[in-house]
Amino acid sequence: MNGLIAATYAPMHEDTSLNLDIIPEYGKFLKTNGVKGAFINGSTGDFTSLTVGERKEIANAWGENKPEGFFVINHVGDTSLEVAKDLARHSAENKIDGIAVLAPYYFRLSDIHKLVAYCKEIAACAPNLPFYYYHIPVLTGANFSMAEFLELATPQIPNLAGIKFTNNNLIDYKYAKDFNNGSASILFGFDEIFLASLPFGADGWVGSTYNHLAPLYLAILEAFNNGDHALAATLQAKSMKFVDVLNAKGGFNGAAKSFMKVLGVDCGPSRFPHVTLSEAQLKEAKLELETLGIMSHTAKV
Amino acid sequence: MNGLIAATYAPMHEDTSLNLDIIPEYGKFLKTNGVKGAFINGSTGDFTSLTVGERKEIANAWGENKPEGFFVINHVGDTSLEVAKDLARHSAENKIDGIAVLAPYYFRLSDIHKLVAYCKEIAACAPNLPFYYYHIPVLTGANFSMAEFLELATPQIPNLAGIKFTNNNLIDYKYAKDFNNGSASILFGFDEIFLASLPFGADGWVGSTYNHLAPLYLAILEAFNNGDHALAATLQAKSMKFVDVLNAKGGFNGAAKSFMKVLGVDCGPSRFPHVTLSEAQLKEAKLELETLGIMSHTAKV
Amino acid sequence: MNGLIAATYAPMHEDTSLNLDIIPEYGKFLKTNGVKGAFINGSTGDFTSLTVGERKEIANAWGENKPEGFFVINHVGDTSLEVAKDLARHSAENKIDGIAVLAPYYFRLSDIHKLVAYCKEIAACAPNLPFYYYHIPVLTGANFSMAEFLELATPQIPNLAGIKFTNNNLIDYKYAKDFNNGSASILFGFDEIFLASLPFGADGWVGSTYNHLAPLYLAILEAFNNGDHALAATLQAKSMKFVDVLNAKGGFNGAAKSFMKVLGVDCGPSRFPHVTLSEAQLKEAKLELETLGIMSHTAKV
Amino acid sequence: MNGLIAATYAPMHEDTSLNLDIIPEYGKFLKTNGVKGAFINGSTGDFTSLTVGERKEIANAWGENKPEGFFVINHVGDTSLEVAKDLARHSAENKIDGIAVLAPYYFRLSDIHKLVAYCKEIAACAPNLPFYYYHIPVLTGANFSMAEFLELATPQIPNLAGIKFTNNNLIDYKYAKDFNNGSASILFGFDEIFLASLPFGADGWVGSTYNHLAPLYLAILEAFNNGDHALAATLQAKSMKFVDVLNAKGGFNGAAKSFMKVLGVDCGPSRFPHVTLSEAQLKEAKLELETLGIMSHTAKV
Repeated sequence: MNGLIAATYAPMHEDTSLNLDIIPEYGKFLKTNGVKGAFINGSTGDFTSLTVGERKEIANAWGENKPEGFFVINHVGDTSLEVAKDLARHSAENKIDGIAVLAPYYFRLSDIHKLVAYCKEIAACAPNLPFYYYHIPVLTGANFSMAEFLELATPQIPNLAGIKFTNNNLIDYKYAKDFNNGSASILFGFDEIFLASLPFGADGWVGSTYNHLAPLYLAILEAFNNGDHALAATLQAKSMKFVDVLNAKGGFNGAAKSFMKVLGVDCGPSRFPHVTLSEAQLKEAKLELETLGIMSHTAKV
Repeated sequence: MNGLIAATYAPMHEDTSLNLDIIPEYGKFLKTNGVKGAFINGSTGDFTSLTVGERKEIANAWGENKPEGFFVINHVGDTSLEVAKDLARHSAENKIDGIAVLAPYYFRLSDIHKLVAYCKEIAACAPNLPFYYYHIPVLTGANFSMAEFLELATPQIPNLAGIKFTNNNLIDYKYAKDFNNGSASILFGFDEIFLASLPFGADGWVGSTYNHLAPLYLAILEAFNNGDHALAATLQAKSMKFVDVLNAKGGFNGAAKSFMKVLGVDCGPSRFPHVTLSEAQLKEAKLELETLGIMSHTAKV
Repeated sequence: MNGLIAATYAPMHEDTSLNLDIIPEYGKFLKTNGVKGAFINGSTGDFTSLTVGERKEIANAWGENKPEGFFVINHVGDTSLEVAKDLARHSAENKIDGIAVLAPYYFRLSDIHKLVAYCKEIAACAPNLPFYYYHIPVLTGANFSMAEFLELATPQIPNLAGIKFTNNNLIDYKYAKDFNNGSASILFGFDEIFLASLPFGADGWVGSTYNHLAPLYLAILEAFNNGDHALAATLQAKSMKFVDVLNAKGGFNGAAKSFMKVLGVDCGPSRFPHVTLSEAQLKEAKLELETLGIMSHTAKV
Repeated sequence: MNGLIAATYAPMHEDTSLNLDIIPEYGKFLKTNGVKGAFINGSTGDFTSLTVGERKEIANAWGENKPEGFFVINHVGDTSLEVAKDLARHSAENKIDGIAVLAPYYFRLSDIHKLVAYCKEIAACAPNLPFYYYHIPVLTGANFSMAEFLELATPQIPNLAGIKFTNNNLIDYKYAKDFNNGSASILFGFDEIFLASLPFGADGWVGSTYNHLAPLYLAILEAFNNGDHALAATLQAKSMKFVDVLNAKGGFNGAAKSFMKVLGVDCGPSRFPHVTLSEAQLKEAKLELETLGIMSHTAKV
């Protein structure tokens, strides 16, 4: 699993019920724009506002409708270990290509061994699927060394495939990549500094802006590989500004979900606590992004 | 609603399935020892490890089996607003005496107005029940002024009854108590400093150690009211040490749940990530507590 | 050393040079209003904006001019151990009654043993003076258990007298007070919750508002001892509001220093980064405090 | 001012008095190994353990003895604005090429405007020297946007030259670099991720490991420019491990200072709270670094 992987939104109707019908089109859109896979039911997918049933419906819809050659990783983490295991089993039975879990986020873990035990139990419920730990300490408080995690977890979790690494600690990122001669797949998860991952040899990325800006990131990659660092940095600055413009509309999560409609894939409104942008706000955001020269780099239907 | 309110455990069988049969006995035990009510499905009740169905079952069992004159407050908070509203409606239909919610804990709120909006929607689903906001910033990150919360929420939430105040900011506690001439019920939630709440006129408390040590706290209250401050402080130190002794066995939440068995109400094992004490550990804990002169102050069947 | 101890301001002329001439009058003012001692060159005394020479001048002035029976504790802590030792030696030679140090605050200590070693070296430079550790983790980041500190430091520091405890952790406060049958003097340092210290048997307090409101605190103490808890709590709320009113004028440290002029002891302006209130602001603050019924409780010349 | 700039140690005799005699040799060593300048009296230089007099002596020694073409930036920041201004004036009079200040670190600033005011006053005391703000939020708590700082400070501080950027927020780094078409010099200050700065066009770096490993970093730069990213990443991993090996000896600051002796420039022991390594520990560290293939990349006399 490598290349750009989009952390997808949970598409919704106007009343915030799930709009699963759009998923075939959503998958095609991503693939057309160079995305290799979908990370579903994650933070971008706002899993904490979904019921367990809804998480399963979304997984089913992606499993059934993923484009050819497309990877689908289902995030199954939950504060309840039993719920997470149930979702892992469900993934194993439903055309999902990999599962991921983040650390419990109410009673925060202070012991890395507890984290490994948690992952082990869940991974064992889908033994034939690659398992990814989803490292996002800013939201879970589980700020452990991922190099140490790999050392402890690798012997215990046969299907451990890697880490979705959403942190700006590039030291730990490098150590994790080097673990056991690069045996684990460390998917970089901080879109705004995508460029910083390149000299470290990154070859897989998961993030929300790969929904909107895959062509931009592929252009950054190309410029970097061509040694055109000035161009690469200029393009990366556009991704930073994309986040800033939308974030300023009341919060990035909700605003960027709303903005999908502008790109041709209407993901609908957001649930609490995220904002939903009005048509006027979307028009304004689009205008700002055009002025900044960003709209020409967005994904197209 | 005042006096001591126990934050109850979710009783479980050896396999961690719910043991609802023990609830009548559990309620009687609490009442016998001077407790006035139960705060169910809260942090002590480990709601984040329960399914929504289990939370309803526990609410039903307490609603049906509460001792006469006993209050039952059901915590219905959830990261999903829809789940919280569903649980609120269920409470309204099932002999629950009040509901409470804490702030969402994955995407943490940075805006007190969003918190009020969240509470308002949930409170409206059980309009005839008193509504409590459960303030526990160390776990939710929602570190807002409760005096300000009352000011904003009171005009908007007709059934707002008060706050479960689990924080050691006694300044904010005092301001919240004084709001609108004391119109809100501010239930103090930091057992180990129960004594500090008394000179501020506290008359309601919610906490986990009221499961085990209600007689001790009633003795502190009596000593305080008699002006015997040396005795009150000595007894309060025993409550602090009770927490320390059990916390040292691998974490207070799980250890104190296990310890209920020693007191005659077997609440069973804990779910991840909390520990479950072995018989040997329970014996050891009991011995340590006896040596410290604490066992004579525990609740009795 | 017990009773109310004022954390004094560094009095300044209009140009922010030291105004030492006012110290005799300042000391008399404090004593007249029931204060038992001065804690000089501390956070309130804004030691980090003073030169080493100025700290010595202030110590000399207080040593020479303290009222009869008045205690003067000189804070000598510094990020430089050598500077702290120099100030300790200077205190020993200049009529100072005790010294205190806080933890280094640039490279923050993560090891309590290093803290003990730091205190030990400084205490040994003034072996005939009582030594106090000044616990203020919100400013130094040294968030250690004071009970553990006493356990480690007591055998190593013969002149260890106690702790200035500026933290709202009343559990640790109680444990520290109980250490070795109360052998250490734990001076409570959180003025706004003075009342919370009383049921734990507090008999010494250090804080900045004892400059302004000593009569108020003595009235709280009297009410508490008379069992008039409603009155005590009402008076304590006035101290909270005093802090809020001044804090709202641009920051408590500077505003409260400026406000000394209103009470008859002109301590002059503040140094960076603290504000200095204008005459108009002082008038406004006084009016607000009158409206809240607080001015009648202030110290008088 | 660009290229590698070493954050130098304060050289000391065995008794921790300053050893200024070694500075000519120290400067020559740095220049020989490709370093372009020295950042003196900073965090690495342990300025908080020095007296004001010592800081001036160090500045004088470097001003008098710097190698030809070598830049010397003197850090003059202090919690006392007056001290900082005095040190700035002294720099202006003593062959220093630039000054820098970090934010006050006892009463931490919560207002970026106060930071600008602080910098403005100090910069004005050395109006003919380039002024750098030293951004190191992990130690000062002043976690402001540097892009915003430049926007506010540029019109007010004529001699503002740039920022020593010691933070891992590469987004803010990029925005700061792009400010006003790159008018400010943003010196990257996180040695272990030197490589991450390269695709963003970094051309100036300040850090402590440029004392020991300048040849390694120049090799990383060369590999990056040649498009040999695998080699660059491998070399960067060596710099990470260098820090880890020494940090594990009781703390990086002290251990790395001690290690200078192994490289031929004996900087002597450390002051509190930093460790000083024994001969045995130095031998052990050297052996570990040899095993990791790092010793061949160190600076040589």
